[in-house]
Amino acid sequence: MRILSGIQPTGYLHYGNYFGAVRNWVRLQNDPANETFYFIADLHALTSNQAGYKSEVQVYIENMVVDLLASGIDPDNSVLFLQSDVPEHSELFVILSMLSPVSWLERNPTYKEKMEEIKGKDLDNLGFLGYPVLQTADIALYEATHVPVGKDQIPHLEISREIIRRFNTTYETEALIEPQPLLSEVPKLNGLDGRKMSKSYNNAIYLIDDPDTVRKKIMSMVTDVKRPKKSDPGHPDECLLFPYYAVFCQDQERIEDVRRRCMAAELGCVEDKKQMAELIIDYFADFHRKRQEILAKKNMVFDVLAEGAKKARAVARQTMEKVRQAMGMDTLRRYS
Amino acid sequence: MRILSGIQPTGYLHYGNYFGAVRNWVRLQNDPANETFYFIADLHALTSNQAGYKSEVQVYIENMVVDLLASGIDPDNSVLFLQSDVPEHSELFVILSMLSPVSWLERNPTYKEKMEEIKGKDLDNLGFLGYPVLQTADIALYEATHVPVGKDQIPHLEISREIIRRFNTTYETEALIEPQPLLSEVPKLNGLDGRKMSKSYNNAIYLIDDPDTVRKKIMSMVTDVKRPKKSDPGHPDECLLFPYYAVFCQDQERIEDVRRRCMAAELGCVEDKKQMAELIIDYFADFHRKRQEILAKKNMVFDVLAEGAKKARAVARQTMEKVRQAMGMDTLRRYS
Repeated sequence: MRILSGIQPTGYLHYGNYFGAVRNWVRLQNDPANETFYFIADLHALTSNQAGYKSEVQVYIENMVVDLLASGIDPDNSVLFLQSDVPEHSELFVILSMLSPVSWLERNPTYKEKMEEIKGKDLDNLGFLGYPVLQTADIALYEATHVPVGKDQIPHLEISREIIRRFNTTYETEALIEPQPLLSEVPKLNGLDGRKMSKSYNNAIYLIDDPDTVRKKIMSMVTDVKRPKKSDPGHPDECLLFPYYAVFCQDQERIEDVRRRCMAAELGCVEDKKQMAELIIDYFADFHRKRQEILAKKNMVFDVLAEGAKKARAVARQTMEKVRQAMGMDTLRRYS
Repeated sequence: MRILSGIQPTGYLHYGNYFGAVRNWVRLQNDPANETFYFIADLHALTSNQAGYKSEVQVYIENMVVDLLASGIDPDNSVLFLQSDVPEHSELFVILSMLSPVSWLERNPTYKEKMEEIKGKDLDNLGFLGYPVLQTADIALYEATHVPVGKDQIPHLEISREIIRRFNTTYETEALIEPQPLLSEVPKLNGLDGRKMSKSYNNAIYLIDDPDTVRKKIMSMVTDVKRPKKSDPGHPDECLLFPYYAVFCQDQERIEDVRRRCMAAELGCVEDKKQMAELIIDYFADFHRKRQEILAKKNMVFDVLAEGAKKARAVARQTMEKVRQAMGMDTLRRYS
């Protein structure tokens, strides 16, 4: 499988990103049957944060590279690159935009939803409407056969498949490859308040958070509203914290023991949270060790992105050659 | 003045293009105070003709280069290039699309008009909606200070100016230059049927038309419906042919003489058309001589476009560096 996935540098990587995407990226990378392309989607980040590129996005990009490496993305094994380093994304986007009906894009469920959801951000721009088209270019450029998606993203990938089909039909070619969705089972990790973990909900724990920050955040969680006193029996299935065990605790017996003692009012929420904080800190101990190693290497981020851009462009250029050939756009290019 | 103008390779160059644009391009080029950038807008052509790129557009591009050179565009004096040869158009387009409200683009008078006007063409695509944004990228990329426009195109240029202003405001920069409209007086030359000369109206005379074709086309003109017989007095001010004199005849006395003899029923329409055909053939004799010279030189089109692409890219790359610097997109690029 040739796998492609990207992540927007709109914040620091949080546990939701890690368990929802990054950990899966590492697994897919480590399967020798796969070729993996992972990119930081800084052009996509521009759709919702134009002015912030200069100040915020740069910081997020740098941190994201460090976090991805510390999470196990191996630049010798995956092509890890920054989207804006590869002009072919824009070139293919322009070409595919000619084949993308505005009506398809307006019907895109994410479009209307986000337009309403994200307040205070300027989403009335052509780039945001064209988001699925740029995404199609991202995928097609690397001839990805598979794209890891959650169920909610399947309609998005379907648009990409339709645009690619339209290109191939229009130019009577098989130059572009229709990607398949790769439904991966990922654990669901809610945010500190039970909602989806998100920077904008201010309910996230970040990969960069140090042990004290993790402790403080976990201790701040409202666990069981139906249990005002420690001597009341707890309700693990309604508790915001309890599902964290499924993610952070490998020991099934221990999980059952926690459940039992909580329901029997033997284990209090405060104690429970303290233990969970330590489980989490342990879980990410390796990550933080690696992170320090990476930060100690000067220019590591630059070197990784430079190398990644080189590898990505080599593939992207080849695809664009096929695209131009299919369109006849190379006829006059033979000279160049 | 740094002047930029483009033309879509959607057909052979006709007299309407020549008098409405190309002749003016040559004049602007020959003024030593100007730097002129002229391009063949093949990406724009894709907005209305996706499938035709392969078969038609290539032919039109080649012919257009030849016709432009034969019309007096001098590749040593103007930068003459093909839009799709310069990937920076697409790169800047993507960035500017993030700053272009969809509502501005939908309000663009040309958008709705063309959507209704052009039947049988698929204009429901993102590329067509984004047309003014790509045009803005075209202009901004070469730091054009002036863009030759007709009055009807001023709203278009105003959108470009607003998008450029938005970029500069958002990134607190003066990296992009707001272009001024350059209103040029061009003679109006109607098509053979009196409507605007256009390939789609099938009423055009093409620069490549040989003398016999020119004669046949001129003779086919319906000149004066109020003059069924040659012995009836003519109506030069309602005649479709008579305005051609203002364009093709330098001799004011002769024009007055034609008017007088037409109104006096001394000059018949057939004779009049015969004389006009010869005037036109004379007018373009030089053009056709040059055209033959150019066609005799092997690889001329390729060489001119290759050289033009080189010069254009040098400028475009510089602008993109400024753009990236203004956005902070160069911070991580220092390595490349």
